[in-house]
Amino acid sequence: MSEAYDNDRSYVLHSWSVQGKLSPKVITRGDGVFFWDENGKRYYDLGAQLVNLNIGHQHPKVVQAIKDQADKLSYVAPQFAEEMRGKLAKRIIELLPEEFGKCFFTLGGADSNENAIKIARAFTGKNKIITRFRSYHGATYGAIALTGDPRRPPVEPAMPGVIHCFDPYCYRCTFGQKPESCGMQCAEHIREIIQYETPETVAAVMMESVTGSNGILVPPKGYMERVREICDEFGILLICDEVMTGFGRTGKWFGFQNFDIVPDIVTMAKGVNSGYVPLGVVAVQKKIADFFDDAMLYCGLTYSGHPVSCAAALACLDAYEEEGHIDNAARLAPVQAELLEGLKAKHPLVGDVRSIGLFSVMEMVKDRETREPLSPWNGAPGLMAEISRRFDEKGLSVFVRWNYIFLTPPVIITEEQLRDAIALMDECLTEAEKVILDV
Amino acid sequence: MSEAYDNDRSYVLHSWSVQGKLSPKVITRGDGVFFWDENGKRYYDLGAQLVNLNIGHQHPKVVQAIKDQADKLSYVAPQFAEEMRGKLAKRIIELLPEEFGKCFFTLGGADSNENAIKIARAFTGKNKIITRFRSYHGATYGAIALTGDPRRPPVEPAMPGVIHCFDPYCYRCTFGQKPESCGMQCAEHIREIIQYETPETVAAVMMESVTGSNGILVPPKGYMERVREICDEFGILLICDEVMTGFGRTGKWFGFQNFDIVPDIVTMAKGVNSGYVPLGVVAVQKKIADFFDDAMLYCGLTYSGHPVSCAAALACLDAYEEEGHIDNAARLAPVQAELLEGLKAKHPLVGDVRSIGLFSVMEMVKDRETREPLSPWNGAPGLMAEISRRFDEKGLSVFVRWNYIFLTPPVIITEEQLRDAIALMDECLTEAEKVILDV
Repeated sequence: MSEAYDNDRSYVLHSWSVQGKLSPKVITRGDGVFFWDENGKRYYDLGAQLVNLNIGHQHPKVVQAIKDQADKLSYVAPQFAEEMRGKLAKRIIELLPEEFGKCFFTLGGADSNENAIKIARAFTGKNKIITRFRSYHGATYGAIALTGDPRRPPVEPAMPGVIHCFDPYCYRCTFGQKPESCGMQCAEHIREIIQYETPETVAAVMMESVTGSNGILVPPKGYMERVREICDEFGILLICDEVMTGFGRTGKWFGFQNFDIVPDIVTMAKGVNSGYVPLGVVAVQKKIADFFDDAMLYCGLTYSGHPVSCAAALACLDAYEEEGHIDNAARLAPVQAELLEGLKAKHPLVGDVRSIGLFSVMEMVKDRETREPLSPWNGAPGLMAEISRRFDEKGLSVFVRWNYIFLTPPVIITEEQLRDAIALMDECLTEAEKVILDV
Repeated sequence: MSEAYDNDRSYVLHSWSVQGKLSPKVITRGDGVFFWDENGKRYYDLGAQLVNLNIGHQHPKVVQAIKDQADKLSYVAPQFAEEMRGKLAKRIIELLPEEFGKCFFTLGGADSNENAIKIARAFTGKNKIITRFRSYHGATYGAIALTGDPRRPPVEPAMPGVIHCFDPYCYRCTFGQKPESCGMQCAEHIREIIQYETPETVAAVMMESVTGSNGILVPPKGYMERVREICDEFGILLICDEVMTGFGRTGKWFGFQNFDIVPDIVTMAKGVNSGYVPLGVVAVQKKIADFFDDAMLYCGLTYSGHPVSCAAALACLDAYEEEGHIDNAARLAPVQAELLEGLKAKHPLVGDVRSIGLFSVMEMVKDRETREPLSPWNGAPGLMAEISRRFDEKGLSVFVRWNYIFLTPPVIITEEQLRDAIALMDECLTEAEKVILDV
């Protein structure tokens, strides 16, 4: 084994893992939608690493911006002003609806959601936050409290004051309804929860504008608009977590732009600079920014508005715009959706396909009638391992979780690459099915 | 006003501030212990920005390492192995006592402390954490709960399970004792708290090895050893927060090395790469690392072990070592302490000087007998503004908080620079005293 592998196994603790079970690939090179391991094997990066590398690996403009800023000024403390920090804040506000005013800079998604909650509570003078069960908002003690997914309970008690509601999960409707005639209880029950909790105690509703790692749950038509309406009825802020859905992922700059709503606060990370340097952003409406002209902002971190992170983001936003990558994601959205529907038509294991932009999932089932998951929710991989192993063999890096197969490639992917990658996925499913359906 | 200033005021929310009161300097250049504003005015960086820039501004080796890694591979997700990540983990473990085994990488100090608590709770199966009132451990909802300082109450309720104890603050002893004959109640009362809380419910004691932004409280001889002993008596972990005190700040690699103790977990950030790229580290003893061979580590973040952050850290550690900066801090420690004692001898406003390594504070008082603070704890600057304004005029960037004047320069500072800067501080105090003592 290589020195890099040995050092890793001897000295590094990996995220979300039983360490003794790991044998991580050593990654040595990346280029666009591909990366290579230390044995020279090439992989399609169909997860964009952790759904952050929207611009792909080693984009020359972003790399150059990091180098230039490192040469010029690598660090300036948050109490000062600095050119890149101010430029990026302006640029992000200009991407958002006209109601938006200022940005607070953080280091990533968890951090952005933590600070959004502090801001919402200070601005409203209220404490409770409503989020959804199938949400992931980060792992620090505030962000994990917001999170609904099974990474939360093992570290509780975390920050108090969060109430979890259900999701718009039409394939497995919590309310036992059919989409045609459901009356959208997935939105309406939030209003009922607010009433039980007393509206005067609820500061905000926080939602990923499209649920990410818990299953790409694309909200039905009218859902987000109804949530916004319910928030407005009671003077509650709507916070959109755009950490995964921002920067082209859904074919728009931000996921919420697929709906007819304006959030009060938007949180970002990942795609903002594709993770070339850690960065998160909390953007707030002017009414909220103005509030802090006279009130203390109880938020702070040493690396807020880090010049190198901000410079990388400015270059990344330039690249998205000048090279047309957001448009590319929008153009390829129906291609990706159609190709996955094709897999569903062909492979009985595919129970459902959900897709918006380049943000898609195939939900795998043992039986289309019963919809029994191919491997259990929050359980061991089981039969899904037959599929994952084949993806890996064929050089496809795919995020597989429970019975979900995600497809979230860099937004720079070409149609040819997308067709090629999905054709390879098709082969994997065909091979895996022979084993699984014989079981 | 410049475009950079206008952008900042129009679009950026600053940490820990009432935004309407700000008029931040625009910083455009840095070199070693100096930085420059947009008007070309030079400042001695006597705070090392936020006590993070130990290696000074624009160190060529660290800048080069960032550029090289950006060129090579800007991002690899935490589930993979990567050369710099493994090398840095090994390097950090080698700097620590032989009991240490593995590192979990984060993005900063708050993040490191959040994850240290998760690790301590999982390893011990217990929940409560004891920290000190005059502590700052970060601002996210777990880290702020650990924090004792007045930035905590305005955002409560935060993470439950933290009990705050008193500090070894000999100048204003909580227990009304004198150092000569005190019996060290500042340590002993922690044992009493543990007993009231039931030892079987206490996971860890977390302490900055020298209290930082709440007054550089250097613990008396035997204090940390007694705390370690109390922890051992009850099977409680000792976590040293070395975010400020690490990497030469106290004249050693880590602050705890000034005492005869081995912590169970050490958290780091700031000096590890001087903040050129965001990075934090949680280093754990082998017994803890081994536990996670078979147990799930419920910690995770997208930028864990970021290659660019790790590369910057490796270069920074090389520079500390090869260029002798840790030794420099140790050598200048008595010089800095003596010069500040000189200011105390000369200026009646200086009530107390506390110093270890290049980590010092002057505590300012109206009257040496009553020890009444020159400006109130957690209050408006008041008379201290007379001093701060003069520091700024003379080109000294000094961290002033309440009645504390901190001196925490980059550890690369020369004796000549240190003497020059403190001579300028002397002038400022002389001038300010004329106004203040006439009041």
